[in-house]
Amino acid sequence: MAPEAASLSGGSLLLAWQLKDKTVLIVGGGDVASGRIESVLVADARITLIAPRAGLHPLTKRFIDSSDRITYHDRVFAGPQDLEGVDMVLTAIDDVEASRQICALCRERKIPVNVADIPPSCDFYFGSQIRSGPLQIMISTNGNSPKLANIIRKKIERCIPEHAGEAIEKVGELRSKLKERAPGVGGEVGKRRMRWMVDVCSSWDMDDLALLDDTMMARLLDEGWEKNTVPRIEDLGGHHKKAANAHPVLSSSLIPTVLGFVAGVACTAVVLLRRRR
Amino acid sequence: MAPEAASLSGGSLLLAWQLKDKTVLIVGGGDVASGRIESVLVADARITLIAPRAGLHPLTKRFIDSSDRITYHDRVFAGPQDLEGVDMVLTAIDDVEASRQICALCRERKIPVNVADIPPSCDFYFGSQIRSGPLQIMISTNGNSPKLANIIRKKIERCIPEHAGEAIEKVGELRSKLKERAPGVGGEVGKRRMRWMVDVCSSWDMDDLALLDDTMMARLLDEGWEKNTVPRIEDLGGHHKKAANAHPVLSSSLIPTVLGFVAGVACTAVVLLRRRR
Repeated sequence: MAPEAASLSGGSLLLAWQLKDKTVLIVGGGDVASGRIESVLVADARITLIAPRAGLHPLTKRFIDSSDRITYHDRVFAGPQDLEGVDMVLTAIDDVEASRQICALCRERKIPVNVADIPPSCDFYFGSQIRSGPLQIMISTNGNSPKLANIIRKKIERCIPEHAGEAIEKVGELRSKLKERAPGVGGEVGKRRMRWMVDVCSSWDMDDLALLDDTMMARLLDEGWEKNTVPRIEDLGGHHKKAANAHPVLSSSLIPTVLGFVAGVACTAVVLLRRRR
Repeated sequence: MAPEAASLSGGSLLLAWQLKDKTVLIVGGGDVASGRIESVLVADARITLIAPRAGLHPLTKRFIDSSDRITYHDRVFAGPQDLEGVDMVLTAIDDVEASRQICALCRERKIPVNVADIPPSCDFYFGSQIRSGPLQIMISTNGNSPKLANIIRKKIERCIPEHAGEAIEKVGELRSKLKERAPGVGGEVGKRRMRWMVDVCSSWDMDDLALLDDTMMARLLDEGWEKNTVPRIEDLGGHHKKAANAHPVLSSSLIPTVLGFVAGVACTAVVLLRRRR
């Protein structure tokens, strides 16, 4: 059933912003700023960090020392000149007045900006996040309850397959190899490629996809793509991950079965043996 | 363990973009564009839609007819004048050349833009999404496998509590009521408010939080906040949702127990009754 336009409201537009080779200015040296640095490094951006050295979080110090993508300035924000060549601004400082000024300067220049803890000065918010290799998940409660966002994040972490990140990485590699073998943008070959990749992802378990190595990928393309079929992992010389490591759902559903069986045996034995006497 | 800067890469910056009272230009009338309209309406934006009427998706027609937040133009994109007063641009048309031109015009004007199916012309991507009231979740595989993103989305849908969206809404209301009762930004009262809200969210089940009504919220504040404690739902005259409506996890774990019990009864009875003869 399609949603009614009137029922659609109260949310945000969730996006995966691209920052490769962009410059992000981060103002602040505390723990919030240090979390921002991590998120921005993940997105392959260059960072300009402005914060007095005295207040630097230990993790921020480590980032500065270990990453050549961070340009560090040991001072406070100095004015419009600090915004030159900047594609995004994230501030996390205690000075509310300075924060609002930075926000105003960004808005004049149409630079997307987030000022920690001052919602009206934010073009976007950060939600509760999960990352596993190329897999990224964001949970937003649209400001209603950061704690529930956290509880939901933990529930999600428990229910996504352990090797989901690796599976996605391997499928990305397989897709690149397939494109080399059967090149061309769009059209019939593009559709066939897409269908076959969907078939592979639907037929194989994520934990099995995570096992794909170069040899298996070559065989999967030779014996699968070329013959328009999807072989099983055993046909490619692989072994189910499950075989080595029992699936948690399976083992957890066995426990009540076994307990039930034992209880059934015990009850029946008691009843029948009593009647025998 | 803190991550090493060098290990952080290959991802995007996941964001909850704020569009309340902003204008988003959508160019295109097909099914991709219609999905974009839905996402943008959720974020409370005004929409300018440019697409010839002949190619309009049925859902798009319904959105145009039913929402006063959409201004519709029955034509193709006409040039820079169409970008005036626009805060974001989303295009989903087959004309690759026109798409690239729109993207170039947006970049000159620093308007964030997404051109469907042409990654280099995108400042941001859309991931696989879940929405339930104020709860929004995005799953991104960073372009590696849309199919696996979809599979993961379905797994997540199954593992988040059924009433998570309502719970978040109610907790948002409770937080507003608490702020009215104990106002003030930051400081000691802000910290106490945050601690108490965290305690409520940690002590109550999400399905129970979803049951909170005005009367129960008033009692929760009177008997909880004022006495610096968190009453149970029964203390406020409520009933566990679980009691009325068996939790699916509970009932599904009962099945193997019962089956095991029956099997145990049957086997023991057979063995003992045979021995009796």
